[in-house]
Amino acid sequence: MSFLQDIVDILLQYVVKSFDRTTKVIDFHYPNELLQEYNWELADQPQTLEEILLNCRTTLKYAIKTGHPRYFNQLSTGLDMVGLAADWLTSAANTNMFTYEIAPVFVLLEYVTLRKMREMVGWPGGCGDGIFSPGGAISNMYAMLIARFKMFPEVKEKGMAAIPRLVAFTSEHSHFSVKKGAAALGIGTDIKMPNTHSDLAKCLSAFLQGFVPFLVSATAGTTVYGAFDPLIAIADICKKYKIWMHVDGAWGGGLLMSRKHKWKLNGVERANSVTWNPHKMMGVPLQCSALLVREEGLMQSCNQMHASYLFQQDKHYDLSYDTGDKALQCGRHVDVFKLWLMWRAKGTTGFEAQIDKCLELAEYLYNKIKNREGYEMVFDGKPQHTNVCFWYIPPSLRSMEDNEERMSRLMKVAPVIKARMMEYGTTMVSYQPLGDKVNFFRMVISNPAATHQDIDFLIDEIERLGQDL
Amino acid sequence: MSFLQDIVDILLQYVVKSFDRTTKVIDFHYPNELLQEYNWELADQPQTLEEILLNCRTTLKYAIKTGHPRYFNQLSTGLDMVGLAADWLTSAANTNMFTYEIAPVFVLLEYVTLRKMREMVGWPGGCGDGIFSPGGAISNMYAMLIARFKMFPEVKEKGMAAIPRLVAFTSEHSHFSVKKGAAALGIGTDIKMPNTHSDLAKCLSAFLQGFVPFLVSATAGTTVYGAFDPLIAIADICKKYKIWMHVDGAWGGGLLMSRKHKWKLNGVERANSVTWNPHKMMGVPLQCSALLVREEGLMQSCNQMHASYLFQQDKHYDLSYDTGDKALQCGRHVDVFKLWLMWRAKGTTGFEAQIDKCLELAEYLYNKIKNREGYEMVFDGKPQHTNVCFWYIPPSLRSMEDNEERMSRLMKVAPVIKARMMEYGTTMVSYQPLGDKVNFFRMVISNPAATHQDIDFLIDEIERLGQDL
Repeated sequence: MSFLQDIVDILLQYVVKSFDRTTKVIDFHYPNELLQEYNWELADQPQTLEEILLNCRTTLKYAIKTGHPRYFNQLSTGLDMVGLAADWLTSAANTNMFTYEIAPVFVLLEYVTLRKMREMVGWPGGCGDGIFSPGGAISNMYAMLIARFKMFPEVKEKGMAAIPRLVAFTSEHSHFSVKKGAAALGIGTDIKMPNTHSDLAKCLSAFLQGFVPFLVSATAGTTVYGAFDPLIAIADICKKYKIWMHVDGAWGGGLLMSRKHKWKLNGVERANSVTWNPHKMMGVPLQCSALLVREEGLMQSCNQMHASYLFQQDKHYDLSYDTGDKALQCGRHVDVFKLWLMWRAKGTTGFEAQIDKCLELAEYLYNKIKNREGYEMVFDGKPQHTNVCFWYIPPSLRSMEDNEERMSRLMKVAPVIKARMMEYGTTMVSYQPLGDKVNFFRMVISNPAATHQDIDFLIDEIERLGQDL
Repeated sequence: MSFLQDIVDILLQYVVKSFDRTTKVIDFHYPNELLQEYNWELADQPQTLEEILLNCRTTLKYAIKTGHPRYFNQLSTGLDMVGLAADWLTSAANTNMFTYEIAPVFVLLEYVTLRKMREMVGWPGGCGDGIFSPGGAISNMYAMLIARFKMFPEVKEKGMAAIPRLVAFTSEHSHFSVKKGAAALGIGTDIKMPNTHSDLAKCLSAFLQGFVPFLVSATAGTTVYGAFDPLIAIADICKKYKIWMHVDGAWGGGLLMSRKHKWKLNGVERANSVTWNPHKMMGVPLQCSALLVREEGLMQSCNQMHASYLFQQDKHYDLSYDTGDKALQCGRHVDVFKLWLMWRAKGTTGFEAQIDKCLELAEYLYNKIKNREGYEMVFDGKPQHTNVCFWYIPPSLRSMEDNEERMSRLMKVAPVIKARMMEYGTTMVSYQPLGDKVNFFRMVISNPAATHQDIDFLIDEIERLGQDL
């Protein structure tokens, strides 16, 4: 117990430092350096508890401070104290979600929480089904799996050979997990995606020859631009063609908590399934991803295998609480408790305030740079989510013509600035190319600890690190 | 911070009580009672931190003490202090495994730990590849996915329609996740399994008409009996027919740590892939499951989608450490640190001692009951793993003929005893029917805190609770 308290003391110090702007976000080392910096190898003989504590300190020394107010690198940032406490409790309870028998409270909390999330999606009385899955990619794969089963239940036993060739639709800005899921499920990825959703209806009728369209995966909050697909229009098309409508709201789902911003998801209530990752915009510790399904019972029929060693039918309690056979996983980590406890601590209004604040900060950034010298925005208009995508144009490129040479020089700007940021350890922000657009910064804000001053710092830092390029 | 310390105090008390034999394993309530016992609902308004602490206390009051020395209900039991500390550190670090950029230390530790596990499997120099996945079911699904891709790489783009009908082989005692995986991957589950592995070769030649056998999933430690498939014989067959050999060692893999017991996995070094769940026999907190793959690079080609927002090709460090594109998941929880830290604290020899002890306890139980009045063993001979499967025959059935009435009465014995155990909260052990065998107890031991006295207690408790049946 004194060992656990020693670890806690180390962790509390780390947590305090995570929020301290004078601390580095990262103490960067190249992989081969870091491998040599310390002896990480596993051996036959045990180490002492003192050495174990040193291992922990060393690990934290080189870890990224993902709770730092200047860490903007991913969609999941921040470190919520109640969420952290809940995760610690989850570890101490060390159980598995497959049956009520071994996770009574957590199974009930999953039930309560998923129902509440479905209510927020707009399904009457929170009706439907769902599960917490290990991340948005798996949630999206579940949606495809269930949609396929709904249309062709024989696929479960007979495989793809027994059913027509299927095709799923999604936009080119959708998350790559839709393709990963299609590959895994044996559907294949070799399908041209409609470039805009207005092409969707056209594509659908064209594809009717030889292929059966079975799912449209619309995106609520794309990964790079934070854009929202027109869900109402897509719902109309899906209704007309009787196709499963999935909404990947892994990133944008959090906006359902905000009275000001939830209109961006109008139409989500007409979806058959929704992915929503509270570990992104709601700041719940990793991982916490929900798949919500409108039709009750479908997940169960799709995935159940009736393992008699887990789902005995002669138990003494209500078996509808043995939810494990809905899942592809057998053992399933308890991901619900951190969301549930944070929701109790903040209330819906607390999540709303936190999300509104992040969107306000994104708008502040957008307004700050849209006309600023040395900046070009990647897409027109105000960001719909907290994604602000922009090029920083170093002075040497500002008066250049827009030709290939400029593009090839601009392409190198963001990676160099990013590398310098990491070496200084002052801040982190993501960049990427997209289609014909060369590397640009994608700023996202999901950490409620960030302030206007941190946005100002980011811009100053980009200029400091990039002006000689 | 004082809030976090308050939570820690609650958790430390809980941990201490988990090991106290005078504490109940479970304070059982039926689902509808538990729903009414407390207000679990989510509301608009926040609760105070005092209320949050109360939520935590209430949650723990009704949680199962999975670390309790008399909790034998699942393959994952026990609560290791170093593992718990490591999980707490993981929560505080709150990052994601997809890139070195945001998880430098954890990516390196995954590399070190997987290589060590592959060494223990027996692949030269720990060569190969692997990943920590969210549980054994997903690890097994990965194996099928990769095996299919290895034989027919075009399946990724073109889907199952472009390749022959596939068939996987596994024994009837294999884990149900093999079927779940086959259903998800579009292969279908409607495949007769060879009842014994000696039938495998026969089945294989028979199936060659119209189907392409692509994978044999052998089991090292079946879920119910703890049996080990004859891996060398299976390896010979797989070699002959050029089929991917997968070993599901989710449960039995831990025995590789034991010089005394690892012979049971002889032949595993000839597998193409191995599932091994340290969260089972090695007592690592949930979840920690590894898939090991012999051929390097295959996971990457099979699953990669080159998302340019994560896996930028112009980063400033060695990109081979950006391992996320190997996975089906995008975000991936850090599951490695608890295993790594426990391994450092125990050494391989510490895991060995812990595993040997659990197997010795199982043998003690077997010897105690094999000739005891009122017990019948479900399978002949000494258990190969810690699974001891037996019927308790209450006095009223002992002199009955072995007819249908006896069977139908015996079927009800284990469920009633189990229900009583849970209501008294004194111990928990699993039961199930299997094939034509009516409900029997499946005792498993993976908690190093258990002792001979706890085994004695279990037997006394079964007799106390079952003698009137």
